[in-house]
Amino acid sequence: MPRPSVREVIVETALVEFHRSGYSACSVDAITRAAGVPKGSFYNHFRSKEELGVEVIGRYAANPEWSRDPDPSAPPLQRLRARFGIMRDVMVGNEFTRGCLIGNMGSEQADHSVAIRAEVDTDLTAWSGAIAELVRQAQAGGTAPAGLDPDRVARFVLNAWQGTVLRTKVVRSGQAFDDFFTTVFDDLLAAG
Amino acid sequence: MPRPSVREVIVETALVEFHRSGYSACSVDAITRAAGVPKGSFYNHFRSKEELGVEVIGRYAANPEWSRDPDPSAPPLQRLRARFGIMRDVMVGNEFTRGCLIGNMGSEQADHSVAIRAEVDTDLTAWSGAIAELVRQAQAGGTAPAGLDPDRVARFVLNAWQGTVLRTKVVRSGQAFDDFFTTVFDDLLAAG
Repeated sequence: MPRPSVREVIVETALVEFHRSGYSACSVDAITRAAGVPKGSFYNHFRSKEELGVEVIGRYAANPEWSRDPDPSAPPLQRLRARFGIMRDVMVGNEFTRGCLIGNMGSEQADHSVAIRAEVDTDLTAWSGAIAELVRQAQAGGTAPAGLDPDRVARFVLNAWQGTVLRTKVVRSGQAFDDFFTTVFDDLLAAG
Repeated sequence: MPRPSVREVIVETALVEFHRSGYSACSVDAITRAAGVPKGSFYNHFRSKEELGVEVIGRYAANPEWSRDPDPSAPPLQRLRARFGIMRDVMVGNEFTRGCLIGNMGSEQADHSVAIRAEVDTDLTAWSGAIAELVRQAQAGGTAPAGLDPDRVARFVLNAWQGTVLRTKVVRSGQAFDDFFTTVFDDLLAAG
């Protein structure tokens, strides 16, 4: 296997460190130390920590648990539930720490970095769009209420998920996940 | 008017600064400078920045927009909607920046400070409880679906609100608020 480039090592290390410690709390110095690369090499690859932050969010969003579809032939709401279930299982495995890096970066940096805010916005919009598509399919098959605006309910469900992940980090239990699955799938999206 | 104590000036300044800049990004030095008090005086009043953080969250939670009830004689779901509406109006006034300090502190510090996590947990639990009480009243009056577990739906609604506030910070528009009000009050809590 070819040795990963210095740039690649920095991105992968920063992803772990930003997720674990937060963006502000994590200096360029700490990242290069954890990556085992000279501090001076950082600025050969990135103009700023912010540029690295944007790349890390994009990397995290491009390879989400979300994209694993355990059974693409299952009914659409079952697929939606399974995808959220995979993300829940990852967070249970992390003992409810860390949460979603996209949400964390948005919460922490939306007011402070135009570039990070734009990247988080792009990723959340794409994610909502994928949810809306499954809701549309469920409506077409008669398994979700026909009267719901699929785009609006998809944005709401994703926002509710982000708040659920936050609550889970705070409570350190799976209760917020149970609340989410029951309310979204048994109440909100259940066909009359 | 008596001059506020140094301690009080530090707490009120820190509330503004943590809300504006985030907790990690805001040093004790920056707080005492913004407060116009000697840096050395800080440790006469607080053992640590963390102790100050806990007090600031409690202060923010104890005097929420939430507690203003524009019309206590209105039907319960109208009161619930009005309270969320007051918080939305504050955030619109802030041009969608800052968000909710309780959610921000939870997102940023839940993994790093046991004391801050506990304070955020306490405040969110009290807040959910107040929502549940209004849902219960609405169910008793026949204006919310009888089949919903009021405690579960209240936790979910609060989590959805926190995610909504986060999305609003990222998108810098009121769309997430509109999504929240429509989905929660017209779909989820609407009596069949």
